[in-house]
Amino acid sequence: MKAIEILKSVQNGETTAEEAMLKLRMQPFEELGYATVDHHRQLRTGIAEVIYGEGKTAEQISGIATSMLNNKQSVILITRMSKKIAEAVKKDHPQMTYHELARVGIIGEIPKPDGIGYVVVATGGTTDLPVAEEAALTAEALGNEVVRLYDVGVAGLHRLLAKLDVVMGARCVVAVAGMEGALPSVMGGLVDCPVIAVPVNCGYGASFNGLSALLTMLNSCASGVCVMNIDNGFGGGYLASMINHQ
Amino acid sequence: MKAIEILKSVQNGETTAEEAMLKLRMQPFEELGYATVDHHRQLRTGIAEVIYGEGKTAEQISGIATSMLNNKQSVILITRMSKKIAEAVKKDHPQMTYHELARVGIIGEIPKPDGIGYVVVATGGTTDLPVAEEAALTAEALGNEVVRLYDVGVAGLHRLLAKLDVVMGARCVVAVAGMEGALPSVMGGLVDCPVIAVPVNCGYGASFNGLSALLTMLNSCASGVCVMNIDNGFGGGYLASMINHQ
Amino acid sequence: MKAIEILKSVQNGETTAEEAMLKLRMQPFEELGYATVDHHRQLRTGIAEVIYGEGKTAEQISGIATSMLNNKQSVILITRMSKKIAEAVKKDHPQMTYHELARVGIIGEIPKPDGIGYVVVATGGTTDLPVAEEAALTAEALGNEVVRLYDVGVAGLHRLLAKLDVVMGARCVVAVAGMEGALPSVMGGLVDCPVIAVPVNCGYGASFNGLSALLTMLNSCASGVCVMNIDNGFGGGYLASMINHQ
Amino acid sequence: MKAIEILKSVQNGETTAEEAMLKLRMQPFEELGYATVDHHRQLRTGIAEVIYGEGKTAEQISGIATSMLNNKQSVILITRMSKKIAEAVKKDHPQMTYHELARVGIIGEIPKPDGIGYVVVATGGTTDLPVAEEAALTAEALGNEVVRLYDVGVAGLHRLLAKLDVVMGARCVVAVAGMEGALPSVMGGLVDCPVIAVPVNCGYGASFNGLSALLTMLNSCASGVCVMNIDNGFGGGYLASMINHQ
Amino acid sequence: MKAIEILKSVQNGETTAEEAMLKLRMQPFEELGYATVDHHRQLRTGIAEVIYGEGKTAEQISGIATSMLNNKQSVILITRMSKKIAEAVKKDHPQMTYHELARVGIIGEIPKPDGIGYVVVATGGTTDLPVAEEAALTAEALGNEVVRLYDVGVAGLHRLLAKLDVVMGARCVVAVAGMEGALPSVMGGLVDCPVIAVPVNCGYGASFNGLSALLTMLNSCASGVCVMNIDNGFGGGYLASMINHQ
Amino acid sequence: MKAIEILKSVQNGETTAEEAMLKLRMQPFEELGYATVDHHRQLRTGIAEVIYGEGKTAEQISGIATSMLNNKQSVILITRMSKKIAEAVKKDHPQMTYHELARVGIIGEIPKPDGIGYVVVATGGTTDLPVAEEAALTAEALGNEVVRLYDVGVAGLHRLLAKLDVVMGARCVVAVAGMEGALPSVMGGLVDCPVIAVPVNCGYGASFNGLSALLTMLNSCASGVCVMNIDNGFGGGYLASMINHQ
Amino acid sequence: MKAIEILKSVQNGETTAEEAMLKLRMQPFEELGYATVDHHRQLRTGIAEVIYGEGKTAEQISGIATSMLNNKQSVILITRMSKKIAEAVKKDHPQMTYHELARVGIIGEIPKPDGIGYVVVATGGTTDLPVAEEAALTAEALGNEVVRLYDVGVAGLHRLLAKLDVVMGARCVVAVAGMEGALPSVMGGLVDCPVIAVPVNCGYGASFNGLSALLTMLNSCASGVCVMNIDNGFGGGYLASMINHQ
Amino acid sequence: MKAIEILKSVQNGETTAEEAMLKLRMQPFEELGYATVDHHRQLRTGIAEVIYGEGKTAEQISGIATSMLNNKQSVILITRMSKKIAEAVKKDHPQMTYHELARVGIIGEIPKPDGIGYVVVATGGTTDLPVAEEAALTAEALGNEVVRLYDVGVAGLHRLLAKLDVVMGARCVVAVAGMEGALPSVMGGLVDCPVIAVPVNCGYGASFNGLSALLTMLNSCASGVCVMNIDNGFGGGYLASMINHQ
Repeated sequence: MKAIEILKSVQNGETTAEEAMLKLRMQPFEELGYATVDHHRQLRTGIAEVIYGEGKTAEQISGIATSMLNNKQSVILITRMSKKIAEAVKKDHPQMTYHELARVGIIGEIPKPDGIGYVVVATGGTTDLPVAEEAALTAEALGNEVVRLYDVGVAGLHRLLAKLDVVMGARCVVAVAGMEGALPSVMGGLVDCPVIAVPVNCGYGASFNGLSALLTMLNSCASGVCVMNIDNGFGGGYLASMINHQ
Repeated sequence: MKAIEILKSVQNGETTAEEAMLKLRMQPFEELGYATVDHHRQLRTGIAEVIYGEGKTAEQISGIATSMLNNKQSVILITRMSKKIAEAVKKDHPQMTYHELARVGIIGEIPKPDGIGYVVVATGGTTDLPVAEEAALTAEALGNEVVRLYDVGVAGLHRLLAKLDVVMGARCVVAVAGMEGALPSVMGGLVDCPVIAVPVNCGYGASFNGLSALLTMLNSCASGVCVMNIDNGFGGGYLASMINHQ
Repeated sequence: MKAIEILKSVQNGETTAEEAMLKLRMQPFEELGYATVDHHRQLRTGIAEVIYGEGKTAEQISGIATSMLNNKQSVILITRMSKKIAEAVKKDHPQMTYHELARVGIIGEIPKPDGIGYVVVATGGTTDLPVAEEAALTAEALGNEVVRLYDVGVAGLHRLLAKLDVVMGARCVVAVAGMEGALPSVMGGLVDCPVIAVPVNCGYGASFNGLSALLTMLNSCASGVCVMNIDNGFGGGYLASMINHQ
Repeated sequence: MKAIEILKSVQNGETTAEEAMLKLRMQPFEELGYATVDHHRQLRTGIAEVIYGEGKTAEQISGIATSMLNNKQSVILITRMSKKIAEAVKKDHPQMTYHELARVGIIGEIPKPDGIGYVVVATGGTTDLPVAEEAALTAEALGNEVVRLYDVGVAGLHRLLAKLDVVMGARCVVAVAGMEGALPSVMGGLVDCPVIAVPVNCGYGASFNGLSALLTMLNSCASGVCVMNIDNGFGGGYLASMINHQ
Repeated sequence: MKAIEILKSVQNGETTAEEAMLKLRMQPFEELGYATVDHHRQLRTGIAEVIYGEGKTAEQISGIATSMLNNKQSVILITRMSKKIAEAVKKDHPQMTYHELARVGIIGEIPKPDGIGYVVVATGGTTDLPVAEEAALTAEALGNEVVRLYDVGVAGLHRLLAKLDVVMGARCVVAVAGMEGALPSVMGGLVDCPVIAVPVNCGYGASFNGLSALLTMLNSCASGVCVMNIDNGFGGGYLASMINHQ
Repeated sequence: MKAIEILKSVQNGETTAEEAMLKLRMQPFEELGYATVDHHRQLRTGIAEVIYGEGKTAEQISGIATSMLNNKQSVILITRMSKKIAEAVKKDHPQMTYHELARVGIIGEIPKPDGIGYVVVATGGTTDLPVAEEAALTAEALGNEVVRLYDVGVAGLHRLLAKLDVVMGARCVVAVAGMEGALPSVMGGLVDCPVIAVPVNCGYGASFNGLSALLTMLNSCASGVCVMNIDNGFGGGYLASMINHQ
Repeated sequence: MKAIEILKSVQNGETTAEEAMLKLRMQPFEELGYATVDHHRQLRTGIAEVIYGEGKTAEQISGIATSMLNNKQSVILITRMSKKIAEAVKKDHPQMTYHELARVGIIGEIPKPDGIGYVVVATGGTTDLPVAEEAALTAEALGNEVVRLYDVGVAGLHRLLAKLDVVMGARCVVAVAGMEGALPSVMGGLVDCPVIAVPVNCGYGASFNGLSALLTMLNSCASGVCVMNIDNGFGGGYLASMINHQ
Repeated sequence: MKAIEILKSVQNGETTAEEAMLKLRMQPFEELGYATVDHHRQLRTGIAEVIYGEGKTAEQISGIATSMLNNKQSVILITRMSKKIAEAVKKDHPQMTYHELARVGIIGEIPKPDGIGYVVVATGGTTDLPVAEEAALTAEALGNEVVRLYDVGVAGLHRLLAKLDVVMGARCVVAVAGMEGALPSVMGGLVDCPVIAVPVNCGYGASFNGLSALLTMLNSCASGVCVMNIDNGFGGGYLASMINHQ
């Protein structure tokens, strides 16, 4: 059964709204061959669609985006897209803006913030910026006001303390850090809102490609801290938006 | 300067409310020798105080609890407390209820739920119950309605699908699972709210004491999933409450 | 003693068939210098010969293939062969077809399926395709009907459930997945046939080059699931064919 | 809808047999509180039900078994059950036989072998016996003839070669080994049937609790070898039975 | 040649002081059978002798101590000694004081502090106390004034900031922490003296027996931080003393 | 409040020197956008500023250096800077000297040694030289006399013993080693001063990118040995300077 | 064919000695049920038989030993046998001597040394003694003169250097060490004979149960060093004897 | 004191030969700046000198070789040297032969075999050849007859069994294998001489860069097997030569 048929059966009184909602959530999608584009996802999750660019060709990204636009998607976020591929995609989608540091492309206009409060994206150092920008742009594309606090790592505590009021007013904090990864713990002790910890693959030696920061964050003594995969800035921004819109 | 002095100086017009809030958040605490009990934490984080029982003697737990009660704490949650220690603590605090499976003690009355919606705590199997109960009791002690969905692991999908409506109505899901740890991924694809994944140390061999489930959860393809430390049911319940109260 | 001598001694009544079978299985092979080509392997294992292309030069691959063709091998499967090497091999063996995504070359005609049922090759996402195609082509080269179900990962369960009848009719399932690697567990709960789980090296961070998916699969709660090495699509297809031909 | 209703609707011609089969596979189960006993599993997977005893009390095991017997289950296999718990379970189920080495209990009569051929269960050394016996008893409880070949490890090759004819006639081999774990590789080179490799947690030092054997098996150069979790004798026996009954 | 002979040859003018110093450093020791007691170590390293108690019997500890006392050692520190063994050793050496929390015994009087400044020993939480006390007692036995700052972890920053003046006046800091292990990083950013980081095996799950804290400390962004083995409180106190006496 | 205002308030008698020192240490810094340059760090830690070059562009390094020079920094050390980037930086800062082996640039004149003694930097082999030179140049830039002892590894003990007098006269030893990493242990047994162990990522196979040497050093039986991150020559030189200037 | 028949066929001239040797090596053994006792192993490997006691009951050990004695084995070495089990075995085999530290039992007389030179067994510390004694007793039981050099670890180099002449005269060195495990490297640089490195599971924290010492030894810069499994004293003594008897 | 002076003092009767030997072994070497060339090593270890080429420039290799030739070294082995560097070295040392597969260069004539027997170098597969050739060439350069048995892995046992007589006659076996690494175990069960196991970094996925093969070999059940670092063909050949010359 197609989505329209489901909705008509509600109109006819054959199906209750509740049943229809369940059916809609479980059912419609379209097969393109190389990927199952999920057009009802916006209905299902209430937000813009995302294309995970890693390992996809420019043709694949363009094709998926076109299919989405045809289905009335207004904002499309493309993550993990190299500059070279972005330039190729731009030929088909000239309206796309590309953010090189974050390796993120956005098709469509960034919506006005409609969240309850604002989201803080903080980093320990400057090498954490690409991941932090992926988080910040994701949150912005999903309708959030974002305050960036970069290079406020715990080895120079005064830099963070100087911004204490901004931190404390946030509705959700995304704390991005590599090396020793202690920023989320310190932040979790300062704020009353959820802290989403994103470990970063930077440093060298015993950082073991971000494993050290990941373990630090999982062991945080502060309550209210949860952890994303290493370098998963998108995931951090997405979850922050979810919390800021509930 | 003590808390009362800070507040008086606001009354006198010497300090603005904003400054006072900052001062209060950063300042008062009391030293007991073996632990710094943080009486203004309720002010700071808005919820009940928690005693992490692991490695503490009955005397230490009792002493900290007494100090808290003297400071007007109404609900005290004690986690990771063995039955034997609980019995010793009960002599000083007979009003404590003890939950053996979760190894949790609660002093004071569980408050009426005052969250926005309800929290689902789900498990993959029966061996995940102790961790799930720690999460559920924590959430209840912090004022949340909790719906338990136990033994709905992904190797028998029909069990989870039969509860689809309950899952979809939740404001936050705590998904507790050991072994392959796939429950949070499946749930993250079904719901629109945050899914807090708690890996469990169970199974044998290549489960490597919960490491397998932890890695599975960190690699979840579903958006909106974040991860706690292995066996950290308390952390999952605490964060769920935070999200449900915002 | 050579194979023909063994067989003659059976003819003469000097050796029983059982003894001869044992002798044949243990004995004949030929030395090329850089590899021991095993011409009686077809006799031994009843199927086509395979050349593992990794680390071999075009000359070596061509030479081994020629030796096999001289020994009446009708189908030769070459795995892990780059496009560049394939082009060089094609000069000696123009009848070879090359599948770039799977990095597989096939010399000789794909035989008609003679298995008992069909084999399902399923993937969680689009990045799993190269490994899945290696599995599917291997199974086809060994005489199996293959049904491909790609991009049916557990974070969007409806995609898999929509194909439930196809999955349930399979004689063997090869479930290929990276990231959280939960597909084999879900499939193992749905079908009555063996599920061969193949973890894929994709993703980033805590996927640790496929280790996360490998551990997930080893810890599967579903019965009837067994596991191959990371990225071992060939092994999955080979075993599936073995099971489908018994 | 209940199972009987589904079947009646087939009788009435309202539902086709195929639809009904799908519905039955996805639907009925019963909640006991601590575990979802799955009474239609026999229908679903065609074999006896299994209780995973690890971490369950004697009361829980007894209760689940009683519920199964009430639902006409004829053979119940209980794995990972200590001698002490087995003695307690026996009070409720005196017909249970208990195998101490394998820590396995069986309620009901072992069925006559109805598989196509026989299953070989082989071990590298004597310390692998508990896991091997778990595999062998599981296969027997599921209706398979089992040939045991114990202590035929690769460091004394003549012991294995002396049994070559038995090994070669098997329909499926379960190769159980700890330490260097090389037995499945050697067997995979000798036979034409699937080899299910089960690594064992034994040895010391760099065996790292079975990790060494697990990695050896995953890296096997022999085709047709697949791997189970460390110490998962049950899984090996179950999959062998599945292959032997197709 | 014995030590006295070396010194006499200096007196005679046959050997220069420099040569003699070298000879003395390399030469004398005595064999007891189970351990080579090194009586000139005091000369060599300028401080009291230490007995590492782990795995030694009460008889062995007593014997080594007696041999040391016979060689005019005035202070003997015994680490990693259980209460039970300490009681047995006390029969031979009643003048020994035993510190149960730190599992340390001291024979002889603690010397007056003769270091240049004072040493701060700080911990993140209360579970770090045994390791911290081992460090503090070691430093005291070696002639240092020690200031203890316990339970000042980074998840409650105000507790550490309240002691800022004490921390900043130290000549060396031993920062002891488990879980996320972020204390040394924060301290390294506050002080100008060396910070010796000692990771602690506490916590659970992804703390991996102190590995998480160890990695955090090795990756510290703060300059002037160096790291000891997990739980090596003795090593931290010893090095702190060395720095405080130079 | 700015630094100058703080100092004036001391002049006015409004603030004591002690209070002012604390305020100064916690407060002033400047935001450049991509990095928080910390101009009072010299005041705070008493030594030259360091730019960690890894992952920074030539423009970023030049900009930070210019900002530092404008704030009267006399010596600037730039670590982990490739030759290519160094050449670009030299256009803006022609007075910079570049040390290719160590990948270190120094702007400003190396100060005369003003430490108490000298620092020994020793290596086990020739592949450890880049890390050792980073350590040695750092120490020299911070005002230390450095004695280099290269290629004195423990597999040829006579090379180290021939330099015994130099080693024994040091105030601090930085022992740099890869492979088995045993040099710090041997040195720790020979000297009375702190030994800073720096593991090196060299070798192959089971060296696991320096992990082997790191573990060796953490497990050193010699007292007075502490450990830095793998390849952290800068950290070793910095800490050595701190100890040599106390 | 039995061994005696093979030998008779040589007598008859039907078989050459070379063929018979091969047949004998590959063929005879006897099945006891729980273990395949290999009576021709003495013929095969030229030395006494060994029983690996770990995980075997007293009955099993006694039974195997009796079977060996019946087959004219003159010396039997039993390793990894607890005191309790040894006492039970002694009832059947009162002539057995038991070495508690090494957990080794020996039935039969230790043969006179018939090796070419002597074997040195050296340890880094006193906690390495159980493993070293297992090595030394094994070598003695196999007919070697053994020189023990205990507690000569590299953190006190003078202890080893004092024994230089003994070390340099050895035909083979077994170097047993835990913690940093540097002893084999230092020895490998001093001697011209093979050095067999045996890592020991001792220490704590980052020793990771002997992994640290194992890695150190595998990375040894000294030529002529080979490595055994952690705690494998038997293997070290066995190989040393093999080298000393060639 | 120089070497010549030591020898003269023997001539004069001032020093005994034994003392002189010790002095010579500990003392003379020469500093080139980038490496301590050890000219008395031939005296010390009785064999040719080796240059480890990894990470060295052509100039460094040439310089060291020239210095050695000046000191009358007749055979120089250079390992881990790329083709490009070899060509540069050849300009200075045209008499060098270069073996590309093994990446080994040899200056001087390979000596006639003067060992007691012959050395077998065996591999499991063709990808193990570079490491095996490094071992074989090393052994040949040190005066050993070498028999190569390549591609005789355990997944095709008949290939190894066909060479049984050659294997059994060896004085020492170097068994080189990647993937599952089972070859040394099987060989250890067949021969009476030492088996030197060399794990190889080949394969993919769970081979973890040779770790899997390394662990397999360390856990070998066969006595007389010892292990080298991953890819350490040189070490294997060196030790084999040592054993073959004793």
